Amino acid sequence: MPNMESLGKLEDIVISTRIRLARNIVGHKMPEYMNIKEANDLSKEIVNIMKMSKDDEYEYYKIRDLDDLEKTCFVEEHLISPKLYGSILSGAFLLSKNRRTTILLNEEDHLRIQTIYKGLNLKQAYAEASKTDDFLEEQLEYSFHEKFGYITSCPTNIGTGLRASVMLHLPAISITNNIEELVNILRKLGLTLRGMYGEGTQSIGAIYQISNQKTLGIREEDILDRLNKVIAQVIDRENEMRAFLLNERKIDIEDKILRSYGLITNNKKIGFNEAMNYLSDIKLGMGLGVIDQVDGLDINKLMLEIQPAKIQCKLGVRMDKRAREIARSEYIIKTLTKEE
Amino acid sequence: MPNMESLGKLEDIVISTRIRLARNIVGHKMPEYMNIKEANDLSKEIVNIMKMSKDDEYEYYKIRDLDDLEKTCFVEEHLISPKLYGSILSGAFLLSKNRRTTILLNEEDHLRIQTIYKGLNLKQAYAEASKTDDFLEEQLEYSFHEKFGYITSCPTNIGTGLRASVMLHLPAISITNNIEELVNILRKLGLTLRGMYGEGTQSIGAIYQISNQKTLGIREEDILDRLNKVIAQVIDRENEMRAFLLNERKIDIEDKILRSYGLITNNKKIGFNEAMNYLSDIKLGMGLGVIDQVDGLDINKLMLEIQPAKIQCKLGVRMDKRAREIARSEYIIKTLTKEE
Repeated sequence: MPNMESLGKLEDIVISTRIRLARNIVGHKMPEYMNIKEANDLSKEIVNIMKMSKDDEYEYYKIRDLDDLEKTCFVEEHLISPKLYGSILSGAFLLSKNRRTTILLNEEDHLRIQTIYKGLNLKQAYAEASKTDDFLEEQLEYSFHEKFGYITSCPTNIGTGLRASVMLHLPAISITNNIEELVNILRKLGLTLRGMYGEGTQSIGAIYQISNQKTLGIREEDILDRLNKVIAQVIDRENEMRAFLLNERKIDIEDKILRSYGLITNNKKIGFNEAMNYLSDIKLGMGLGVIDQVDGLDINKLMLEIQPAKIQCKLGVRMDKRAREIARSEYIIKTLTKEE
Repeated sequence: MPNMESLGKLEDIVISTRIRLARNIVGHKMPEYMNIKEANDLSKEIVNIMKMSKDDEYEYYKIRDLDDLEKTCFVEEHLISPKLYGSILSGAFLLSKNRRTTILLNEEDHLRIQTIYKGLNLKQAYAEASKTDDFLEEQLEYSFHEKFGYITSCPTNIGTGLRASVMLHLPAISITNNIEELVNILRKLGLTLRGMYGEGTQSIGAIYQISNQKTLGIREEDILDRLNKVIAQVIDRENEMRAFLLNERKIDIEDKILRSYGLITNNKKIGFNEAMNYLSDIKLGMGLGVIDQVDGLDINKLMLEIQPAKIQCKLGVRMDKRAREIARSEYIIKTLTKEE
């Protein structure tokens, strides 16, 4: 019998929602084939268009003007892609003041409009990205094919050019070794499961992204509806596994959670992956009622802040690995124990 | 510069002292060659002699009357040897009421008189064992050779029949990987280093026994004096390594100690070896001032109590491995955090 009170609420399990629209402009080579001048001219054109936007103010960044730490912080916040990070000649982006929407320029496509929302907000995030998309489309002629839809650099994005992703915390599915089963089910539904930093990355702290694979021959609304339904099922599955752990493996899961709590609140230095695994257990433990909630503690936020670059941006100090481990330890203990 | 205040005091480092005298009685075969009746008759004779002792009252135990748990508890308290545990036909022992002196009967020798003291007390322990030895010698004719001394079953004990052992907690020598060097130095001095349960055992929780190897051609007083001096040097070495850790590896040793503290006070089940390693770090941490002393906490006593059999004897419940791990966890957390 599942202990219903102990199940993870939707907002405990879903961390964030991301919508990304890939677009290209008629009359320009694909970014890979553009020279620097062409790319920069296109960037300027788009920056000038966005200056006319009444809804949001955008800040403009050129990749070549940012140092490694600054760039990495943007990647760790998921505001830019690792690919844009590497586009050192002509990569650029516009970031909205509320930091929800980024327009990536000269990445794999001319334009990638990305909107991130906390929690499960597929429709809202899509509406916001679409508004920016519509505004740009009034001024630009997008590469669009009557039959196929939006033309993109990589064939997997042709059609809607839409990738909808939901980031989830799935510790119980992970602890019970059911991730592989989930990957197989999702694949059959045309969805993929990825690690925290997207394509090709491993999961850290039981955080996974689920996103649509298919963009061709399917309407945007259907992509979102289908993903929404699957996410609801994944949440059910995670809760089923949480109930299993609590009912059938009570001592073991309590032991694991307590040990993670004991370790992360008692150390002098800690690596990012190690800390993420303990924070994952603590997040689960708070969900299961094994450890007490800490008033006002936002573990999702803490998980973002302790990343290798973010911890340096957060504390305003450049640090080597060991210094980061020490600073991360202090920052986490302060945050979790509300020490001053 | 060593931080002198943080060094381990003698009583932190030396756990206990043990004196053991091996004796055999003229006119009897060695225990290995005795039949059960002969062995039992000899036991009875010795029990009757000890009944006349004015100093101590002794309780008499026959190995065959004890079940495995009872026997194992005596071994874990170091009151009987693993060898006597296995002497299921004729093994027996007399235990003094203060539990300091055990007379092991029909083990490797007819008699083994053993006295254990807390801390470093070689002379006192020897005096107490000798008193029992002298009392027995008034009533029994010991096998004694004018030139060689006491005749024992194993040639390594011939001479004084004396083994003097000191049990020490050497975490800093252990952490800095200097145990092997110590073993080599001790070997040259005719001393041996063994694990917690004596011959052939591994160290658990950085606890080691140092004892004399040589018993022939050397006076009892010289054995004790020599061992005393070496123990003083080993304590100096341990303190030198503690100062090194605190001065040169401060963050790392604090990290190790804090993590052990965090783990042992936050879990639902814990194995014996794992718990011993954490308690060893905590004992070191209290010595170094890294973690606060707990009023009235006796870690040496706790280390004895959490052994696989002792935890059952202590709590008065027979338990399988998993139940012991859960009970050990509760007992340690209660003791360390002074919870009620």
